[in-house]
Amino acid sequence: MSPELAARFAALVSARDVLDADAAKPKLSEPRGLYRGKAALVLTPRSTEEVAAIVRLAHETGTVVVPQGGNTGLVGGQTPDGSGEAILLSTAKLDRIREVDAEGDLMVVEAGVTLARAQDAAAEVGRLFPLSLGSEGTCTVGGNVATNAGGTAVLAYGNTRDLVLGVEAVLPDGRIWNGLRRLRKDNTGYDLKHLFIGSEGSLGIVTAVVLKLFPAPRETATAFVGLASPHAALELFRIARAHAGPALTGCEIIPRIGIEFALKHLDGARDPLAEPHPWNLLLELSSPLSVGLAATMEAILEEGFSKDILQDATIAASGDQAAAFWRIRMGLSEVQGHEGGSIKHDVSVPLGSVAVFIEEATAAVEAHAPGARVVAFGHLGDGNIHFNVSQPVGADKATFLAGWDAMNRVAHAVVHAHHGSVAAEHGVGRLKRNLLREVKTDVELDLMRMVKKALDPKGLFNPGVILEETQS
Amino acid sequence: MSPELAARFAALVSARDVLDADAAKPKLSEPRGLYRGKAALVLTPRSTEEVAAIVRLAHETGTVVVPQGGNTGLVGGQTPDGSGEAILLSTAKLDRIREVDAEGDLMVVEAGVTLARAQDAAAEVGRLFPLSLGSEGTCTVGGNVATNAGGTAVLAYGNTRDLVLGVEAVLPDGRIWNGLRRLRKDNTGYDLKHLFIGSEGSLGIVTAVVLKLFPAPRETATAFVGLASPHAALELFRIARAHAGPALTGCEIIPRIGIEFALKHLDGARDPLAEPHPWNLLLELSSPLSVGLAATMEAILEEGFSKDILQDATIAASGDQAAAFWRIRMGLSEVQGHEGGSIKHDVSVPLGSVAVFIEEATAAVEAHAPGARVVAFGHLGDGNIHFNVSQPVGADKATFLAGWDAMNRVAHAVVHAHHGSVAAEHGVGRLKRNLLREVKTDVELDLMRMVKKALDPKGLFNPGVILEETQS
Repeated sequence: MSPELAARFAALVSARDVLDADAAKPKLSEPRGLYRGKAALVLTPRSTEEVAAIVRLAHETGTVVVPQGGNTGLVGGQTPDGSGEAILLSTAKLDRIREVDAEGDLMVVEAGVTLARAQDAAAEVGRLFPLSLGSEGTCTVGGNVATNAGGTAVLAYGNTRDLVLGVEAVLPDGRIWNGLRRLRKDNTGYDLKHLFIGSEGSLGIVTAVVLKLFPAPRETATAFVGLASPHAALELFRIARAHAGPALTGCEIIPRIGIEFALKHLDGARDPLAEPHPWNLLLELSSPLSVGLAATMEAILEEGFSKDILQDATIAASGDQAAAFWRIRMGLSEVQGHEGGSIKHDVSVPLGSVAVFIEEATAAVEAHAPGARVVAFGHLGDGNIHFNVSQPVGADKATFLAGWDAMNRVAHAVVHAHHGSVAAEHGVGRLKRNLLREVKTDVELDLMRMVKKALDPKGLFNPGVILEETQS
Repeated sequence: MSPELAARFAALVSARDVLDADAAKPKLSEPRGLYRGKAALVLTPRSTEEVAAIVRLAHETGTVVVPQGGNTGLVGGQTPDGSGEAILLSTAKLDRIREVDAEGDLMVVEAGVTLARAQDAAAEVGRLFPLSLGSEGTCTVGGNVATNAGGTAVLAYGNTRDLVLGVEAVLPDGRIWNGLRRLRKDNTGYDLKHLFIGSEGSLGIVTAVVLKLFPAPRETATAFVGLASPHAALELFRIARAHAGPALTGCEIIPRIGIEFALKHLDGARDPLAEPHPWNLLLELSSPLSVGLAATMEAILEEGFSKDILQDATIAASGDQAAAFWRIRMGLSEVQGHEGGSIKHDVSVPLGSVAVFIEEATAAVEAHAPGARVVAFGHLGDGNIHFNVSQPVGADKATFLAGWDAMNRVAHAVVHAHHGSVAAEHGVGRLKRNLLREVKTDVELDLMRMVKKALDPKGLFNPGVILEETQS
């Protein structure tokens, strides 16, 4: 980029919002260091109008724009390429909570508000904003929307997509689309917000959203269960869902090796059960109903015992104990980092196939890489498994990680056999765009390109993310 | 259309699927007779492949295609224009339930399956398919998807959009998009199903869908409440939602005049309460939890009484009594037909504004048309009111109905003041396309046109529905 053009961009925001090299650096690589990029400028505009001015100039001058939220994405969708020609447009300072309307069960927040702040703003008025994920202290609502983030509350509340009533976005030509609707029902034509949600910044940049709020739960019951197999876990999920319906708000599977990693690497972690079990299920019921959910949890566990599905179970006697159960679950990604290299698969399969998927994929991976340690955990009730593979004990990390793509092929073949997704909740980004050909027909890829071309004919918004770059 | 071309279309299906004039006639006007059209051919293909063959020929020859489901739509979206050049493509014989997977909590049904059959198929395996609306015996799942149908269960289960996991559609160029995914989480790029859902047949034709199933409720508690005002109804809704959360599965407001119409015109209808009240609320709790929902309902009503929100209330003592409450609610459209002309407004406003909307719109309409009888009823908990206006007693029906657009302008002005929707759950069709300019910015209309042009560049699919016709 010419100094003249850079100066024109810089003039669109205040001087403190043109980041210097030190401030820019952490935004130019993603957390695991898989992607590093360069940018002509890193800008942190403070208003939708400033964003629009930047994008208009980019459109006029053919400049690439890469939007970035909290920079916690795991697929490289927030990192510019190495050319140094792009504008990195950070939403960090679009950080106002514009309104919290408890009576209307909604709030209007800007894209750069962290998820934790959004949750807190809801809690302050006695409401629940249910989206919850490991990076919630850092990730932003805009990033959650751009990636249609999932997390641990999808079972009862849906993905981010299901929590959004309205969207404000700057389109690739610099126009502002004010779609900040507050309506539960609105059938006035194509529902455009769903195009932007999950588009990973490739169709424009989301600057603010209207989010749904829910009644805060009055009661919670949490249980930690030991089981023999993923099949038993799936059976118990079905029992729990039949008993509790939407009050089943968490159903996370954890393998024994995950417990062992946690006991070894998480300060103060304790085994929730007296004996080790091959598999565990973390069950959470919660509801605004004041109805003794503990009794429902007991009924679920009793039915599980009577059908020989359970080996052991404990119900949390306090909020602290429930938090300790969840800490093991939420620490699983971190503890794997202490066990050397880990090759990840963020996959989903239809609910009915999740147990057989875990068994088949484990067998396939163990045959492919003897000694590799499968750590398959996560959102059983959504059919979404984080099928991670830790390196063999004592193996060389770099050598193990060099086999990333080959390992992916082995695990994804099992996903494909069950008509699953290879990008269940983290998105496609740059990491997985080559995989789309395996899971999408030509017709669908073509539809996606038609949409991209219609909204971003110059291909300036996050090129190379989701779809391969095409010549404009 | 030339006889030669008509013969080419007819040859794509079996002879019995080319309807003769008698069989075609009921499909060429919509139920209220507001729209009547002509078609070169009315075809009832029996497979997705037959649909695709028809659409390919239409694409090749520049022939307009109008998709039609159960022909229950209220906005003229299913009726061809008067030119007689279009193919009316009825999904009536795409009527297979391809699969019901109770364990996976899903079913795969073709577009022409009636909603009632889909509900029954779910119930047969002990599951709930919650979509529920007045025309469910006749309307089809494909039509529900095309219009993103709402109904009485949106409060707890969402609109049709929220109940669809996957879509199979024939695109305007005749290609089949198989998007019949069965996944609860899938972030592999743009979520194209949301483009087709609610597109009213203007972007292609949905031929089959994967629908979510839910646990069947074990318990239901239903109450009929008398109140002084819509404000009191909204306050009671908030109390109910705080107590019951997702177990609040129905919250319908009914004005006194609606009860009176029902008592007069519905066989065997009885007033649920001893005394008349200006407003009534039908509350339903249901849940798979076995927890004594009656106690929760009592707690809701007690809080309502203690805060002087309620005037009277009765809890249904039996399923029959609950059904009698619902019969009054579901009969409200029909009974208005016995009271002369009725001008309809299918509108929504943000939840917090629904009570003041009813009051303001009623005052505006009564000032505009003295003697006109406002019958404002419906889905209070969704902010979606069927703001219908019955003619003054003894007035001339045709004269009254001639004031449809003027009346709309008066009521819609109040909708606009509250940033509401003028097409909340019935869609846009031909009836409301002129209204979109009032509720959409130019940017949004332009986005919609960009999408239409990208998917249907020749403008052959349901032209004039949602968007005004454009020259291709």
